[in-house]
Amino acid sequence: MSNEVNVGLIGFGTIGAGAVEIFNKNQELLNEKTGKKLVLKKVADLDITSDRGVKIEPELLTTDVNEILNDDEIDIVIELMGGYEPARTFILKALNNGKHVVSANKALIAKHWEELIDTATKNNVRILFEASVGGGIPLLTPFNEALSSNRIDSIYGIMNGTANYILTKMTEEGLDFDSVLKEAQEKGYAEADPTFDIEGHDTAQKLIILTKIGFGEYVPQENFTVEGITKITPTDINFANNELDYSIKLLGIAKKINGNLEIRVHPTFVPKTHLLSSVNDVYNAVYLVGDFVGPVLLYGQGAGRMATASAVMGDVIDIVLNPEKEINYGPKTSQIAKVKKIEDLNAKYYIRLTAVDQPGVLYKVGEVLKKYNIGIESMTQKGNSDKQPVPIILVTHHANESDIEKALGEINNLDVVKGETIKIRILD
Amino acid sequence: MSNEVNVGLIGFGTIGAGAVEIFNKNQELLNEKTGKKLVLKKVADLDITSDRGVKIEPELLTTDVNEILNDDEIDIVIELMGGYEPARTFILKALNNGKHVVSANKALIAKHWEELIDTATKNNVRILFEASVGGGIPLLTPFNEALSSNRIDSIYGIMNGTANYILTKMTEEGLDFDSVLKEAQEKGYAEADPTFDIEGHDTAQKLIILTKIGFGEYVPQENFTVEGITKITPTDINFANNELDYSIKLLGIAKKINGNLEIRVHPTFVPKTHLLSSVNDVYNAVYLVGDFVGPVLLYGQGAGRMATASAVMGDVIDIVLNPEKEINYGPKTSQIAKVKKIEDLNAKYYIRLTAVDQPGVLYKVGEVLKKYNIGIESMTQKGNSDKQPVPIILVTHHANESDIEKALGEINNLDVVKGETIKIRILD
Repeated sequence: MSNEVNVGLIGFGTIGAGAVEIFNKNQELLNEKTGKKLVLKKVADLDITSDRGVKIEPELLTTDVNEILNDDEIDIVIELMGGYEPARTFILKALNNGKHVVSANKALIAKHWEELIDTATKNNVRILFEASVGGGIPLLTPFNEALSSNRIDSIYGIMNGTANYILTKMTEEGLDFDSVLKEAQEKGYAEADPTFDIEGHDTAQKLIILTKIGFGEYVPQENFTVEGITKITPTDINFANNELDYSIKLLGIAKKINGNLEIRVHPTFVPKTHLLSSVNDVYNAVYLVGDFVGPVLLYGQGAGRMATASAVMGDVIDIVLNPEKEINYGPKTSQIAKVKKIEDLNAKYYIRLTAVDQPGVLYKVGEVLKKYNIGIESMTQKGNSDKQPVPIILVTHHANESDIEKALGEINNLDVVKGETIKIRILD
Repeated sequence: MSNEVNVGLIGFGTIGAGAVEIFNKNQELLNEKTGKKLVLKKVADLDITSDRGVKIEPELLTTDVNEILNDDEIDIVIELMGGYEPARTFILKALNNGKHVVSANKALIAKHWEELIDTATKNNVRILFEASVGGGIPLLTPFNEALSSNRIDSIYGIMNGTANYILTKMTEEGLDFDSVLKEAQEKGYAEADPTFDIEGHDTAQKLIILTKIGFGEYVPQENFTVEGITKITPTDINFANNELDYSIKLLGIAKKINGNLEIRVHPTFVPKTHLLSSVNDVYNAVYLVGDFVGPVLLYGQGAGRMATASAVMGDVIDIVLNPEKEINYGPKTSQIAKVKKIEDLNAKYYIRLTAVDQPGVLYKVGEVLKKYNIGIESMTQKGNSDKQPVPIILVTHHANESDIEKALGEINNLDVVKGETIKIRILD
């Protein structure tokens, strides 16, 4: 690269505006750290009139992305438009035109991993995406560098700020899911359509990237279980916190067991003694265990304009300093023999069922559990005065998920059981 | 580098044996990640007969360090002997002989920063020392890479495992400092001479390195306040935990205030709502705040054979992949106007004094505090039955350290005050 490095930005939304703000505020630092003049040359977006709250010269703005992709003077393209298309086409074109790419597009990277990495490699340019998982948290770089001599044993991540905010507020304020979601939407912590966040898809995409980098194994989303947090009630939260000393967190888990991989996203009981249980509000954290390093926790803001832009610009600096740097996107060959099915999971379970408040219920439930050889660590039934159906809370010993599923199927068919039965897996 | 990369190891102690173990156990992973054959060619130590509990070919061992320093086939030298000399001489010779160096020697790096970095730069080789701060935790690399677009606002670190283990056990078991230290020594968590760890010197050396990397400012240890944990009593711990909702932690703090730097090491009251208060036992963590990324916490094992060796070998892999990589050892120019003196600190203080149990004591103490305009948030005096001197606990509002010092000087001279008065700074 010459002494002036030109950057083109595609996507002038929230994160894009954050990147522009780093150029505005820390330009001197960027130049000093890279030893070059870092120039934001062009910003492409379909909307170039709305005010993003950051200063930008109007002549930098364009609605024509080709002014970036076809500009031979642009060395690095930052893609922050999100989504699969046309983002994929734009990134591939940038790479094929010999430009380095920095992206925060977890959906695209999780889905088109191989094509993107291969295209970059073929063109001898770099594609970096530190911001795609855990926002501002240094996460992918550590896996590829400081932790690189380790075989990874397990990864547990709180990777969705919206879900974590909702669970935190439900815990702190005793409110139900819908009320907290509404509050989160009003505060801008949840989207108008929050499905992607609260149903675990966002966490799943991030987990796919971490699993590839940690274990060398690419597992598409359709091949693992993803459960969201919409069925969590104040009863569950209250029971977890006050009777069992757990927090409920939406975790992405990837874990090597006897050479096989468990990969799953679901709400999880996390012991209060575990650092992940103290990760609250919109914060994210990834807890990993390596065979030599032992446990490591990396914590910070997993989303938001400023934090995500910080990671994007960290990648830009890295490329400017080391345009030819070799990077490992995880182990080159998979460390995994096979991906386990969720039915083969062995865990402890929290089970909440709703039953009529009359004698004999526990006997009938107990009979089913005994049939499937599921041991019970504790059972709580809280009666009420008006003979309405009441929640019954069970905590099992370690059991196989397939047995739990069969037992819950039969329990749900009991005439004394009303409404939906919920199971939440407990972190060992 | 050719397809075979030769590594020489100087210092076959605890960490050195850990590095050998990574070669033994993860050789395949090292080769795959680097795309080269990584060969441990020679290990130098004065003692080459004691069993380190790891497998090593006897012909690799030598007592003559020159067999490494003068071997043209050795590309990378790992220095794990510790101490200033002859480690400094060996490292400089290795660099001058065109070899890359990886070191975990915080004392040496903190003291001879400029000479070491300059010598590496001059010889166009790399010197890396991720393991020198926070053991296995990815820490220096994130500062230099993923967080690189930020101006750092503050750094708070629990960086000594021995001190943190002692404080944790004092908290959990209600024991006094000496008993816990003895237990820690028996378990191998504290050295026979623990001064370096418990008096804060180890933390100070690590803080010097973080301060240089975070703020571009080199502050030698004689220029800042370093206080250890030997004066902490069960009374302090009990009061912090049960009456105020704080943990006591030995923190290294480097913080930018109006362009100036506060840098200090001392036991600190950390609010229980702060993640650092949940960092227990021998674990370390660094909490930093960047202007864009916001707060980030990096947590893991700060010492020990396996974790430290993990960071050492991460550096080795990085060098093999990127022997010409440009690295910033923090901002090239200092971000700091001047280093503040501890007298200019403004903080809240916990103060424990010991006074005779008779009327008029609080009046006399209060008179002194009023003279120096020190406001009191709370005061607790626990009487006893036998008229022995009793502890009086004060928590101040924000006050200047110089006023606190003057006030404590006068309070200690009161005839009703016995023994030593302790102040512990409270984290804002």
